Amino acid sequence: MASSTSIPVTHHHASELPREAADLVAVEEPLEIRVEGRSVALTMRTPGHDEELAVGFLLTEGVITSVDDILELDVCSAQTGGPANVIDVRLTHPESVNLDRLSRHIFTSSSCGLCGKATIDSIHQQHDPISVGRALRPTPLVLLSLPAKLRARQATFEQTGGLHAAGLFTELGEIAIIREDVGRHNAVDKVLGRALLNRRADLAQLGLLVSGRIAFEIVQKALAARVSLIAGISAPTSLAVELARDSHQTLIGFLRDGRFNLYTGRLQ
Amino acid sequence: MASSTSIPVTHHHASELPREAADLVAVEEPLEIRVEGRSVALTMRTPGHDEELAVGFLLTEGVITSVDDILELDVCSAQTGGPANVIDVRLTHPESVNLDRLSRHIFTSSSCGLCGKATIDSIHQQHDPISVGRALRPTPLVLLSLPAKLRARQATFEQTGGLHAAGLFTELGEIAIIREDVGRHNAVDKVLGRALLNRRADLAQLGLLVSGRIAFEIVQKALAARVSLIAGISAPTSLAVELARDSHQTLIGFLRDGRFNLYTGRLQ
Repeated sequence: MASSTSIPVTHHHASELPREAADLVAVEEPLEIRVEGRSVALTMRTPGHDEELAVGFLLTEGVITSVDDILELDVCSAQTGGPANVIDVRLTHPESVNLDRLSRHIFTSSSCGLCGKATIDSIHQQHDPISVGRALRPTPLVLLSLPAKLRARQATFEQTGGLHAAGLFTELGEIAIIREDVGRHNAVDKVLGRALLNRRADLAQLGLLVSGRIAFEIVQKALAARVSLIAGISAPTSLAVELARDSHQTLIGFLRDGRFNLYTGRLQ
Repeated sequence: MASSTSIPVTHHHASELPREAADLVAVEEPLEIRVEGRSVALTMRTPGHDEELAVGFLLTEGVITSVDDILELDVCSAQTGGPANVIDVRLTHPESVNLDRLSRHIFTSSSCGLCGKATIDSIHQQHDPISVGRALRPTPLVLLSLPAKLRARQATFEQTGGLHAAGLFTELGEIAIIREDVGRHNAVDKVLGRALLNRRADLAQLGLLVSGRIAFEIVQKALAARVSLIAGISAPTSLAVELARDSHQTLIGFLRDGRFNLYTGRLQ
């Protein structure tokens, strides 16, 4: 499977007319890591080198210390023709491992054969898509004004260079809340948590702005909070674009230097 | 608790003598989120706005949908005088929630009162520090040559802007393995997994280079693989520096544009 894929996009520049194009985005797909048939981690990764990922994960989690601890690596064959995305590691001495202390047990998929589409479907079982046509629709000029506003309020980033930021903004470009954190997911949780604690009933009327890249989980968090537009300073992944499209959310990337890319949704 | 803290650092520039200084780094500390007393997540975060983080996490994980679902937020009081870093959320209708499907259950700490130092101690129970004085010692010139070598081999990043990279390099500056991934932890797992699969016995003689920021978990992964030097293109966090120092690893940040910062360890 390729590590990048081509998708349609609309390029917006401050001083030019919007232009349709095809852009490459990094591929993101789930991988389930199993040990002796038991699911121990589900990670969103770029396909390829999956044996290395599984072995490196078990090494850095302290489950194995040498290649001799591994008896066999099985890539689960997909019965349905979809991508497998499941790898099972059989150990030389399985009895010596306590799997309970593995640190990224996320959820167990019962089937052999996991893919991005199935992941999106399982999200939609829990969270309805946004109603068609109800997404926030700011103007391109409002979007182009956001990076400077975010940066001006990133107090700790300016000092340390070490923090991610997330903000919620109105259709007219006012930044309502901003939070910084060493973890990008934490920054998103903090702004959404603050909005909930403030009893803001208008989350569907706010957009989410993030300082970095937009991966699947950021779009998932926005959907769970009913946020209909996500804009990022950097690149989205393939699965982030797919989830946003299927959820009728608007997704904007590379929002910097007087330009942005519109991956899905409509503006004013 | 502040979101940044001052630490000693040595600034290296291509054309100047090294200079001791004090720099601000972003603070990283663990936070354990509990629901009805049960641990559901342990996340490394910037202290502050912890109620928001807990509430936002439960919102975006689909556990709550409104502030009315929350009965009470308890910040666990530290009996020992250390930072608490534990927050317990009591729900209005706890019987309606299935906590098993929460997605970031990492590990359970039995005590009330979690802190970075305790986290480092628990890492060292599993992985010994590097032997004193045995860390890789490249020259500053070797380090300064690495970013261009990494970038030249980041094929997919050049196309998509969306991938993290990790590489392993020798004391003389040769890049042995490089991997890219949408997840920064995955890129690190992949290079370390490849080294293990190749039966490289010399991991202690290789340095780890990462394209982005260096948080606690990156240093932890390096230690588990016995890698003694970590260099990053961007900023480290406070807890990454502490763990590297306590593990006798060398930590280098902001390795770009003909300069870098040495946070702990020695060079040639």
